[in-house]
Amino acid sequence: MLQAALRSGTAHRRSVFELFPRRLPEGRRYGVVAGVGRALDALEAFTFDDAALAALDGVVDAPTLDWLAGYRFTGDVWGYAEGETYFPYSPLVTVEASFAEAVLLETVLLSIYNHDAAIASAASRMTLVAGDRPCIEMGSRRTHEEAAVACARAAYVAGFATSSNLAARQRYDVPTAGTSAHSFTLLHDTEEQAFRAQVDALGVGTTLLVDTYDIREAVRLAVEVAGPGLGAVRLDSGDLGVLAHEVRAQLDDLGATGTRIVVTSDLDEFAIAGLAAAPVDGYGVGTQLVTGSGHPTCGFVYKLVSREGPDGSMVSVAKRSHDKISIGGRKFALRRRDARGTAEAEVVGIGVPPHDDGDDRPLLVPLVRDGEVVGRESLDAARARHLASRAELPAAAQQMSRGEPVIPTLHVEGTVEG
Amino acid sequence: MLQAALRSGTAHRRSVFELFPRRLPEGRRYGVVAGVGRALDALEAFTFDDAALAALDGVVDAPTLDWLAGYRFTGDVWGYAEGETYFPYSPLVTVEASFAEAVLLETVLLSIYNHDAAIASAASRMTLVAGDRPCIEMGSRRTHEEAAVACARAAYVAGFATSSNLAARQRYDVPTAGTSAHSFTLLHDTEEQAFRAQVDALGVGTTLLVDTYDIREAVRLAVEVAGPGLGAVRLDSGDLGVLAHEVRAQLDDLGATGTRIVVTSDLDEFAIAGLAAAPVDGYGVGTQLVTGSGHPTCGFVYKLVSREGPDGSMVSVAKRSHDKISIGGRKFALRRRDARGTAEAEVVGIGVPPHDDGDDRPLLVPLVRDGEVVGRESLDAARARHLASRAELPAAAQQMSRGEPVIPTLHVEGTVEG
Repeated sequence: MLQAALRSGTAHRRSVFELFPRRLPEGRRYGVVAGVGRALDALEAFTFDDAALAALDGVVDAPTLDWLAGYRFTGDVWGYAEGETYFPYSPLVTVEASFAEAVLLETVLLSIYNHDAAIASAASRMTLVAGDRPCIEMGSRRTHEEAAVACARAAYVAGFATSSNLAARQRYDVPTAGTSAHSFTLLHDTEEQAFRAQVDALGVGTTLLVDTYDIREAVRLAVEVAGPGLGAVRLDSGDLGVLAHEVRAQLDDLGATGTRIVVTSDLDEFAIAGLAAAPVDGYGVGTQLVTGSGHPTCGFVYKLVSREGPDGSMVSVAKRSHDKISIGGRKFALRRRDARGTAEAEVVGIGVPPHDDGDDRPLLVPLVRDGEVVGRESLDAARARHLASRAELPAAAQQMSRGEPVIPTLHVEGTVEG
Repeated sequence: MLQAALRSGTAHRRSVFELFPRRLPEGRRYGVVAGVGRALDALEAFTFDDAALAALDGVVDAPTLDWLAGYRFTGDVWGYAEGETYFPYSPLVTVEASFAEAVLLETVLLSIYNHDAAIASAASRMTLVAGDRPCIEMGSRRTHEEAAVACARAAYVAGFATSSNLAARQRYDVPTAGTSAHSFTLLHDTEEQAFRAQVDALGVGTTLLVDTYDIREAVRLAVEVAGPGLGAVRLDSGDLGVLAHEVRAQLDDLGATGTRIVVTSDLDEFAIAGLAAAPVDGYGVGTQLVTGSGHPTCGFVYKLVSREGPDGSMVSVAKRSHDKISIGGRKFALRRRDARGTAEAEVVGIGVPPHDDGDDRPLLVPLVRDGEVVGRESLDAARARHLASRAELPAAAQQMSRGEPVIPTLHVEGTVEG
């Protein structure tokens, strides 16, 4: 495709691509943008080294190889900032560059956004229903080893407290927390020896896994070994709600009133919601987090919306023929809010945004200007943005049941620039 | 966990871990082992460099950091070869080493096997129902950018003909095939210009996308531009079965009787099966392939099954208390076949396998011996194995409807060694 466009000369036409969702995953009330920081890293690193060029020899012709050898993105990118919530047709990323430069980014941008936003969108529902109780990401083993690092990062953006993925700590400063496995208990000749070994090494603040053999006996033993200052116990099987009540009562009887109860075992947002009334102090979430809780990808698309015509002017190539705005270009996007600050609508259009009465929050920020990344920020900034953006949504966003997007997307016509 | 085990001295106990599935994904008839080659690469590269150690400083203590600095796997690994089919409790990987050495591999092995086998298991169903028609992997944009490369590789193992992922070509020699997008057509002032540009650059053997505007007009134009020797046309929307019949008739009328019809558009194994009677020559599969067609992960677990006791003898720590075999160790696994070579059962046990009457096919091969990889093979060997192993399954394996595993898993007691 690139080769054909280079040959015909159209590769250099100024083009605008837009990355957007046609819909939310079925039943979801809102989505969460994630992967922005990773996409900027990838864009910056997107060049073709000798090995890549050698692998493409025979796939594309010599002029195309030459062009790829010199490839570096020199265009502009605007987009939603990381952690922002999104709705159908939110213009999440707009790329403006030559066709050739912009089309090459299609796969890497879609991969990163489709994956990371799917994880963050699921994670946000989990942290929403978990309330003040921390969620711990521990799903690395259930997904591709590199995707796992991105999952830990996306989950943190969406409010998870920690991750068990140490590479995410190394690369993105995601706070980490570990736990011990059944194998650790089974390695020792008795459960008591296992608990003593762990407390000796990690102190009484550690979390002891108490469901390898008999839970009641293990809880008794755990407090005997660590004392009433034991940090936490973990339950990984059984009816977690019932068990949490029993264990809480036993811990309190033993004087370990400050010992927390952490539960794990194929939790998702529904299971977390179901445990809201149980005396649980933290949720470890694995498989359902890294698989997007039923929606492992977002279905974002990357479409050419406008490009230079033969006379040098921009031509809209949006498919909708009744679209009256023939001068294409990047969209604006606003989060319209009522007087109390609650989101009312996603307002999207082309041209100059309508007059802002103070309640419209602009959603697009510059990410790349003339090929230079200008939109980099800390993961904590993205996380804070997510919590603020989510808090702004109508209360229906908190319903875990299937439903419509909590706010409508309004396609408006901006005034034509000039 | 490692720190506690190092401190208590139990870290050095000889241990046997097993990676296995408790069940197939709901309704599936068989699973496909994939990722073996990637796992061997990862195991070989599994060390802790200065950056990783620096990131762990403060997470673990100094003796643990020292131990990690010198980490290199020195144990043994046996497993199912890549491409083999599997069933509940198939002992897919057995790792024998010190507890510390073996437990560190848990996450990387589970990540790779859980991901790659999920993709291959979905891919195999697709290529099974596609029969002689080639399947093209084109899902990179719907999954994490590195997972995408692994998906292309796993799909190839499970019978896909090609992938659009060029990194998979570079790293694993997966055959690649490209296509053009709607944006390429929209970039040009007319569809005719787009077709001419593509044919000029890539020859008449190329595949032209014919559903950007009007399909009937585009097919006419495609043959006018490329001649009746046009390689293929691609349909990416609409009722693919109906359209394929119409386009076939039109192509034949135009004398383009050799022009193939490739279809894409959210295909999965059910859609492919539904197109069996349509004149389709190839299937491009994206989202449903890279998300495992409803089952994005396999649920494999990695469990300590046996470890050294205080007296140096091996102690089985398998949870099943009625297991009479107290001398733990690695399992054997056989594919039992009837006289005609059709698989009858997965036979799994501990000890010496039962006498082989010639119809039992051993499933375990050595993968790593004393830390050295011995089980590396070509991707084509894995692909050939998969096709042979699948062909051996009972005919019910070809049913796309939900059902039970096509063969039962028999847990047998081998004779105790000695």
